[in-house]
This record gives sequence, C-alpha cells and structure tokens, in this order.
Amino acid sequence: MAGVGTIFDLADRRREADEPHSPVVRFGVGKPLRLDAGVDFAPWQIAYQTYGTLNADRSNAVLVCHALTGDQHVVNEHPVTGKPGWWETMVGPGLPIDTERFFVICPNVVGGCMGTSGPAATNPATGMPWGLEFPVITVRDMVRAQAMLLDHLGIESLFAVAGGSMGGMQVLQWAASYPDRVFAALPIAAATRHSAQNIAFHEVGRQAVMADPEWRGGRYFAENTNPRRGLAVARMGAHITYLSDAALHRKFGRRFQDRDNPTFSFDADFQVESYLRHQGITFVERFDANSYLYLTRAMDYFDLAADYDGVVANAFRGTPTRFCVISFTSDWLFPTSESRAIVHALNAAGARVSFAEITTDKGHDAFLLDEPELFAIVRGFLEGAAKARGLPAR
Amino acid sequence: MAGVGTIFDLADRRREADEPHSPVVRFGVGKPLRLDAGVDFAPWQIAYQTYGTLNADRSNAVLVCHALTGDQHVVNEHPVTGKPGWWETMVGPGLPIDTERFFVICPNVVGGCMGTSGPAATNPATGMPWGLEFPVITVRDMVRAQAMLLDHLGIESLFAVAGGSMGGMQVLQWAASYPDRVFAALPIAAATRHSAQNIAFHEVGRQAVMADPEWRGGRYFAENTNPRRGLAVARMGAHITYLSDAALHRKFGRRFQDRDNPTFSFDADFQVESYLRHQGITFVERFDANSYLYLTRAMDYFDLAADYDGVVANAFRGTPTRFCVISFTSDWLFPTSESRAIVHALNAAGARVSFAEITTDKGHDAFLLDEPELFAIVRGFLEGAAKARGLPAR
Repeated sequence: MAGVGTIFDLADRRREADEPHSPVVRFGVGKPLRLDAGVDFAPWQIAYQTYGTLNADRSNAVLVCHALTGDQHVVNEHPVTGKPGWWETMVGPGLPIDTERFFVICPNVVGGCMGTSGPAATNPATGMPWGLEFPVITVRDMVRAQAMLLDHLGIESLFAVAGGSMGGMQVLQWAASYPDRVFAALPIAAATRHSAQNIAFHEVGRQAVMADPEWRGGRYFAENTNPRRGLAVARMGAHITYLSDAALHRKFGRRFQDRDNPTFSFDADFQVESYLRHQGITFVERFDANSYLYLTRAMDYFDLAADYDGVVANAFRGTPTRFCVISFTSDWLFPTSESRAIVHALNAAGARVSFAEITTDKGHDAFLLDEPELFAIVRGFLEGAAKARGLPAR
Repeated sequence: MAGVGTIFDLADRRREADEPHSPVVRFGVGKPLRLDAGVDFAPWQIAYQTYGTLNADRSNAVLVCHALTGDQHVVNEHPVTGKPGWWETMVGPGLPIDTERFFVICPNVVGGCMGTSGPAATNPATGMPWGLEFPVITVRDMVRAQAMLLDHLGIESLFAVAGGSMGGMQVLQWAASYPDRVFAALPIAAATRHSAQNIAFHEVGRQAVMADPEWRGGRYFAENTNPRRGLAVARMGAHITYLSDAALHRKFGRRFQDRDNPTFSFDADFQVESYLRHQGITFVERFDANSYLYLTRAMDYFDLAADYDGVVANAFRGTPTRFCVISFTSDWLFPTSESRAIVHALNAAGARVSFAEITTDKGHDAFLLDEPELFAIVRGFLEGAAKARGLPAR
C-alpha cells in the first residue's frame, strides 16, 4: 500500500480521497446526495469497510460510525499509517461487537478524506480537489449518505448503530431520521448538540489551520503547499480536550523529557509537551486540513432539537429503537450531563433506554481505550438486543 | 499617548518596552538580576505604577502582582489600548484594596513587554530587541526583581501581596522567598505548581506562535514582520480556559451572530466564534509574542515544592505571614483542589491561613470580574490584617 512504511505525501493522500484502499460505492448524477445546505450533490461516492458476514435474513448488520478523525478502517491495518484500526478493542471475533456474529459496516463520513466525497476529493468540473468549493455538510448529511449506502447494499434494517463522540451524534441522528431502520442504538460519549465551549475549541482549531499561510485559502493541493503546522497546532489543542487533567497527570505529571532539570529554553522540556508535539506531527501525515474544517463545522452545527421544535424528545416519539447511552466520568468534552440529557429525552419520548456512566480517569477518549466496563456493557446490551431480534444465540 | 485611539504598531510596542508610559527604575551593571537560569542579568529595568500614598512608617505598601497578560496599569488608562486598568473593581478609593489607605505598587514582570526587561526590550549589545536571546525566566526571577525594586523604593516590608493566577504564583513565591517582608498574602485562583494539562495548553499556544512564519525565530522586529495570526490563535485557545462551559453557555449558548440560521460556511456563524476572534485580534495589538512565550514558560516551570525537597509545606515553615487563599468553583484551570493543596501545606507549616471557595460560573477569570463575595473577603481579610499591623482604622 502507498503509505505504509513510507512518507505519505499530499499526492498519496489526494489519491486515497478518490481511490481508497477499501470498497467504494459511486453514485452518479441520477442519485444525488441531498445536503442540508440545499445542494443536490452528485456525482458522489462513499467508501466503507465491512467485517464478518451478512446473514441470510440480512438482520445482523451493525453500522459503526466513526469520530472526527476516524475513518472506515475500524479493525484493519490503516492504509496511510500502517497502524492497527481505531477500534480493535471493541470490534472483532469474540469481542463485544462480535464479527463472528454480526456483519459490521463502517463508512467514511461525507466530508472525510479517506474515499468518501469530501474537500480532498477531485471536483470533476476542475480536475482539482474541491477544497472550500465543497459544500458545507452536517451530521444529518453524513447519515443520509450512509442510508443510501445501505440501500445500495440491500440492508433495509440495521441490527445496531454504534459510535462514540461524532460517531455518537450520527447514532442519535440515525435513530431520529430512520427509527424503523435501527433496532438498537449505542451512542457513546455523545450529546444532542455541541456546547458553546466545544464550538469555541473547534473554532480555535480552524483558525490555527486557516492562519497557516500554506493553507492558501484551502487550495494547498493546487499550490503544492501543506498546512501541516496549522493542522498540528489544531490537533494538539483538540487532543488535550480528549484526555483529562487526571490522565495527563498520571501519564506525564511534570516529568521532564530525557533529563532531570529544565533546559531554560523553548524545547519540549516536559514529557507532556513532547507527547503533544508527536500527536500533532503524526496526525498531519494522515489527515486532510480541509476535512478537519468541514467535520468540526458539522459537529458545531449538530443540534438535534433544532429540527424538532427545540424539543429533543420529539426526535424520538414512538421510536421502536432500544438505546444504551454511555458516558465517562472524566469526559469534560461530552460530559455525563450531556448523556443524561439524551436519556431524559428518550424517557420523555417513552423509549426503551439504559444508561451507564463509567468511572474512569481517561476522559473523552475512553471510548477508544481499554475499558473493561465499557466492553461488558456493550456486550450485554447487544446480547439482549440480539435475543429480542431473534438472532441465533452465540 | 502613542497608542490611544490609533493603531499601535510594532515600533510603538518596541518603544513601550524600553521607554514605558510609567515610572521605571534602571539598574546598571553593578546591580545585576540573578536569574534561575544561572545568569547575572544587567543592565536591566523594571517599570511599575503606584497608587495612593506611602505612609511615614512605610508600613502600608500593597504589592499587586499581575497575571500572564496583565501589566502595571492596574487602575489607569492603558497606554496602548486606551482601556481602563485590569483591576478597576478591586483597587481604588474605598475599594477592597483601598488606595486611600494603602500604597499600591504594581510592577510589570520580568519577561513582560510593558517596560520591564523582557524579549521586546532592546539588547544593548545589538541595539535590537532581545527576542529569544533574552534568558528564560521563572516566577522566582520575577519576584527577585520586585524585591530589588522595593529595596530601591525603600520599602523593607510589605503590608500585603495580592494577585490572581500567575499573580497568585508570585504571591506564593514572595511568601516563600521573603517571609519577613510579607505581612499578609492573598493568592487568588493560584497553585503551587502548573499542572500537566496547563503545561499542555501553554505548549499549544507557544506552538501556534512559533508556527507563524512571521514569527521568524523571534526576530520579527528586525524583519519587520508580525506574528499576529499565531498569537491570536494562542490567545483564543487560552481564553477558553479562562472561562467556563457554563459561562460560555450563559453568554453565547449556540446563538448565531447577526442571523437566525447557519450560513453553511466558515464565517463566524456562532456568537462565541465572533467573540473569540475579537479576543485574539485585540490581544495582538497590545502584547508581544515573545513575551507570551517567556511568561507561559515561567508559569510551566513554577513548582514551589521543587525548591523545598518536594514538600510545599517546607516553603512556609515558621512563616509569620497571614494568608487568605481564594478559589472559584468553576475555575478548571486553577481548580479549587489546587487552592486546597496550598491551604493544606500552610496548615502543615503552622501558618495562619483562611480559605474561601467562591461559588460562581465565571471560571478562572472571576478574579478580574465583578464578584461581590470576592470583594467582601478581600476587604475583610485586609481589614483584619491592618488592625494586626497597627495601621490606623479607616
């Protein structure tokens, strides 16, 4: 594969956006994607991975929705970084989302950069990447695109939809937009709307990207530049919000990097500085700066109640879906109070819902990490749902 | 004054760093400032403001220590921005730090950019601003410089030292380094060491500045460039940490700026975005990018225990100083737990200490805002201390 073990350059990334290392479905001008921005977008494409086998009834499909900087490569080697998939702890044979039992589908979101239409993909009208000419998209647009993919794959009804963070927003949108297509929903570390503080953090990240002169108004592919410094700063700032003060203290404290005393300089004296710089540098190798702008914007715009007269519960009235809402005690980006608001709305709507707040110091990113309690809850919830759905016992 | 009502350019800022609009004391080569970095720094200068009158006993002096982006202009029109001073709510005739009673002194910190030696000041060896040739400084260096200023002014003993945030760090360092010179100490929203998360946020801000090509390795004065975009991003990110989720929600929520619906663009759609951009833009007019690097670094290095065998209490053993420690419930940058740690150390050292946690949703910046409970506590503490010091009743 292009990127593995090599330096993955802009040309490689551009190719991945059009010709991904995964299955891709292309929709022509007759099958436009209707966007909230008021555009019928076509042609367009959606890239995805699958794991496991669809049963004869087509009743065991689990849609996994990825977070802001995730992609469809849930449990396979990543074609750009060569690293393992992002949810190896959760998805796989015998794991909570059991690929010996379920047919797992994960599409790259619209606006992403790994093969689904987004700003890094080629605009057929110009032969160059869309850049900021790509329409601004929403979480609902992502979900609408996924529904068209499932139609194409002949999957009428999903056994479950699961995801954390922006993935959890998609789960909620799925349950609201297509209640009859979702048997069970697992929004993890999510919220029905992005808070003012979260919008603020995203705006700082976007400004960091746009402040980089190599961003060139979004035309860095055409101008053969690379806004890597701006994007790295954005990632560093965001990364702090994915962790917790306690986790940072436990992992790094005030320890110095490779020395006992301060250097009295602006080198990365502290381990936490070095760690963050590394996070920034590795991120820019694999992610598109414009995609970062589009996806953060989509999260900012997310406000489920806005489409339902300002009342979240209205999004779920009479829903047949069963829900399991999960939050983490140390998550300050999507705090437990946000998950409680989801649960209250579901209760008000008369939905079947269970709720778990998991005690951990790992912060928002806990949904991606080794959290035995999380695995037990997801396993138990899917087990119960599978029985209710009439799937064969394990 | 140069800047008021006009656009304050780099040349004006450079002049302010050498020839401030406030009193300044210049120390020659015979009076070097000994720095923790191991340098005897000379010549050097310290700029300051005073308010009120020193009494005949020289016993009514209150040292106010400013925070990261503050300066000596506590309660006078700012020479660069033309705005009121940064602590107009706290300091003045009849206010808690009563200038009819106390002689208030506020020096600009070493490393700052408003007339005390720092990276924006002229290096006599080159005739150009120091930039990164300026030695890296610490909170202890700031305090050492202030002690030399007080010696020069003939003030042996301070009635009180007060400050919030980085100012609170200086208050703690004053009490530790010069216990016999501090009758009463008021560290507000402070900590005995900077946490890993806070170091992380500072590092992102520094990287934002250094990623700006106009920063030019710190030589922007010489090259006539201005890293305003990088510094604005740094300020925007930091500003979020000074507030609270609740305050942002109360002030801005998810309201759009000058419209009812999203623009589906990367304009500042939300009020909170617009507000943050404004914070960034106004900050870069008045502050020096290199000073921002030096002062954030000084805060990161602050670790009072490190100089006392790892035990904070050892910094205060046998101290004659009386303390009033204040924190704010919604401050997540210097949370109450940090203030409690100060109080525990002071108790362990047998010091006289009172502690107040003030309930507010305003976050870290509450110390600068209209907080009646804060004013009442400061007033009461200084009243009691004044009586103990034998100052005449009001």
